[in-house]
Amino acid sequence: MPGLNLTLLTDFYELTMMQGYFHENKHEECVVFDLFYRMNPNGSSFSVAAGLKQAIEYLELLNFDDDDIAYLRNQGVFEESFLSYLSELRFTGDLYAVPEGTVIFPGEPIVKVIAPIIQAQLIETALLNIINHQSLIATKAARVKWAAEDGVVLEFGLRRAQGPDAGILGARAAVIGGCSATSNVLAGKLFDIPVKGTHAHSWVMSFDTELESFRKYAFLFPHACILLVDTYDTLRSGVPNAIKIFNEMKAAGIDSKNYGIRLDSGDLSYLSKKARIMLDNAGFTDAIISASSDLDEYLIRDLKLQGAKITLWGVGTNLITSKDCPAFGGVYKLTAQYKNGVFEPKIKISETHVKITNPGNKRTLRLYDTVNHKLIADLIVLNEEIYNETDDLIIFDPIETWKNKTLLAGEYTIRELLVPIITGGMTIYESPATFDIKKYCETELKTLWDESKRLINPQEVYVDLSRPLYDLKMNMIEKNKF
Amino acid sequence: MPGLNLTLLTDFYELTMMQGYFHENKHEECVVFDLFYRMNPNGSSFSVAAGLKQAIEYLELLNFDDDDIAYLRNQGVFEESFLSYLSELRFTGDLYAVPEGTVIFPGEPIVKVIAPIIQAQLIETALLNIINHQSLIATKAARVKWAAEDGVVLEFGLRRAQGPDAGILGARAAVIGGCSATSNVLAGKLFDIPVKGTHAHSWVMSFDTELESFRKYAFLFPHACILLVDTYDTLRSGVPNAIKIFNEMKAAGIDSKNYGIRLDSGDLSYLSKKARIMLDNAGFTDAIISASSDLDEYLIRDLKLQGAKITLWGVGTNLITSKDCPAFGGVYKLTAQYKNGVFEPKIKISETHVKITNPGNKRTLRLYDTVNHKLIADLIVLNEEIYNETDDLIIFDPIETWKNKTLLAGEYTIRELLVPIITGGMTIYESPATFDIKKYCETELKTLWDESKRLINPQEVYVDLSRPLYDLKMNMIEKNKF
Repeated sequence: MPGLNLTLLTDFYELTMMQGYFHENKHEECVVFDLFYRMNPNGSSFSVAAGLKQAIEYLELLNFDDDDIAYLRNQGVFEESFLSYLSELRFTGDLYAVPEGTVIFPGEPIVKVIAPIIQAQLIETALLNIINHQSLIATKAARVKWAAEDGVVLEFGLRRAQGPDAGILGARAAVIGGCSATSNVLAGKLFDIPVKGTHAHSWVMSFDTELESFRKYAFLFPHACILLVDTYDTLRSGVPNAIKIFNEMKAAGIDSKNYGIRLDSGDLSYLSKKARIMLDNAGFTDAIISASSDLDEYLIRDLKLQGAKITLWGVGTNLITSKDCPAFGGVYKLTAQYKNGVFEPKIKISETHVKITNPGNKRTLRLYDTVNHKLIADLIVLNEEIYNETDDLIIFDPIETWKNKTLLAGEYTIRELLVPIITGGMTIYESPATFDIKKYCETELKTLWDESKRLINPQEVYVDLSRPLYDLKMNMIEKNKF
Repeated sequence: MPGLNLTLLTDFYELTMMQGYFHENKHEECVVFDLFYRMNPNGSSFSVAAGLKQAIEYLELLNFDDDDIAYLRNQGVFEESFLSYLSELRFTGDLYAVPEGTVIFPGEPIVKVIAPIIQAQLIETALLNIINHQSLIATKAARVKWAAEDGVVLEFGLRRAQGPDAGILGARAAVIGGCSATSNVLAGKLFDIPVKGTHAHSWVMSFDTELESFRKYAFLFPHACILLVDTYDTLRSGVPNAIKIFNEMKAAGIDSKNYGIRLDSGDLSYLSKKARIMLDNAGFTDAIISASSDLDEYLIRDLKLQGAKITLWGVGTNLITSKDCPAFGGVYKLTAQYKNGVFEPKIKISETHVKITNPGNKRTLRLYDTVNHKLIADLIVLNEEIYNETDDLIIFDPIETWKNKTLLAGEYTIRELLVPIITGGMTIYESPATFDIKKYCETELKTLWDESKRLINPQEVYVDLSRPLYDLKMNMIEKNKF
């Protein structure tokens, strides 16, 4: 949260390792860490990067206050010289990142940190926490919005979010990924995003009759008048009462452009079609039918396929927790260490292929088709490699290496994906407003083929390694073999 | 978080309804709301209540500051008289709750609010957010600890938690439910819980050799020396190098009681058994084998069934997100409204049976077996009902009403489950220290039969309604029928 010092928001082992580096007097050796992920959540072919703004704020505020130092001293394992060093520690390194709202793919760096190892190690946990969470929710929101097509999606999940931050930052991420507004007032205030809502069952229950409760609400909020119709019986009580009230509003000369009903239980396909007919027959063809009951991208798609007459979707639990996949598997790995004037590449070996890291200080290039502006592939390259759009480019699959493709000069454009965010501890990047990130994300999603946005078993987007990076990786695996 | 004003952490519709009540001049009418849930998460037969301490802090700090009022004014839908009322609003009601760490069951009130409707409505969202989140994680932790039997469970999930609060408050809830410590330093500081950790792969990678990295770590932290052995090859490199270092420590006269290895990839059953033999053969029979790779209660149980030699379990993602069920379905429903000197019961009807609420101002009684102190059943009663342990008691299932049971006087004891927390806006309850709540939770879990703690398809615990409550509910359903 803005202004809160999260310096101790880290795993204890970061601090013991930091003391270890300090003790070895290698704590100021410069290293490169990549933050990347191995698998998209929810069966998606892509993810949406989010959380950078909060990651920057965290780094800007990084400092151990007296209270933090006293707490660490009490742990009984830290040396005074180390604690004294900590009390002066600030983030002085470089940070590169993909802008929030960018579509991203497994294996490529989303964030790259170049900093003294003692700093780079400290910030691992919080960076992962912040980026993992918001990228997860932004990705889920993009899927939900895709299913809703031209329908409007509202974020309604605060009460089921995993704590206050999950609700607040989750609402931000949901808007970045595709929601138009949130029910969460604090998120609305903090991030300047629209807040929306109707009323609850308790409103209806607190009056002697449903009709009376509708009347009071409608005349108080005629221009945001969505009546919840399922407290007693949707079709026999709720919708007929809503229609009575809409007639009363008309008779009173109120011309609302934003009125209608909300369905919150029962079969939403059946009820919305019946309600649509009832509203239309009463002359309220522009009355909105909204729904909000355990919705996710699959249910919205199926409801639409069955002709449900819903255009406004309030999505709660399944979005704010990314219920079918509630964790984004971002990791943070050492890839290079500055020694004798050069970045010496580092690798982590594993029996599991995807767990072997890509060594070296790297960049990611995004290749677009010149004609249709769709994304062709991402290419991870070593930092010193130079690419030119005026050259032909051969890319190949880093596992099934016989699969390759030649891009002819003029047929493709190159975009540098990581942008400099912090240089020598100074922030040189201004985070856009939330709604601007949202709009940027919309254009990002347009660079993907529909085949890659399909909810189930979508076409994978290629992330390739350059020839020099591939050769380096293979050599290092060979050298580390047992 | 402590000290942060969360007054706007609410759904927008709470505020529109509040203005509605204000406008109708019924905003100070006293009502009763129950916070309860309908289904246990993760296929459990029980849940563990948590989050009350933070809920109390939230209510104590409740107030709209000038900034909040200005933000609301800008929404363009609130009247000045209402905003002025809000700026003076504090929580002045009563709160009853089950103590944190209590085992709880579907349908029974966990929290009961008696307050002016304008306040009771405002606090709905934040109360649900806080209680839902922590109860979810405490419940998951109880399951994980149960699977680990006498093994120790550590909470390691911060990097995959859904934002900072989810990591911090999640660690607290995990300790309440069964974890012995957390890796999360900030949670350790805030809630006085032990923090633990080892080192990461990056530590190993930052040295020229694994052996050297182990040596440095071991001699710096000899009394908390758990070496991560899977950076290159667990059995051919990691464990042999660890043994070399343990020999060096012995030779140096270091007698550590807390040393060993951590496995973080590969087959944990196979590797732990092989590593145990290697360590034992080298004379390190007391070396700890810990593990931390995608663990949850099911994997821990299966690994133990296969004879895995692991006694320390670091559980991350699956616990901190409650991955197989990442939302606790707590709801908050109006149950009574004070009118003409009495609490008039309120009900919400639904086609779905479990969605019909229990009307009226109620209490929950917990019935224990006098002989074995196990929980027999919970009984939800109307507030005015009086029960006495010296009377026989007939309880019956509220759905399959022909199923009943007579408890004879002397065979059972009665416990009042909801305790007064806040009275007239004044907190009269002191939250215990986190570790005291954890110990209380251990005694709570002992009141359940093992049959109810089984991970899959456990025996349900009975939650019955008293005869007067049952009759009231049936009458109200009948009256509201269409």
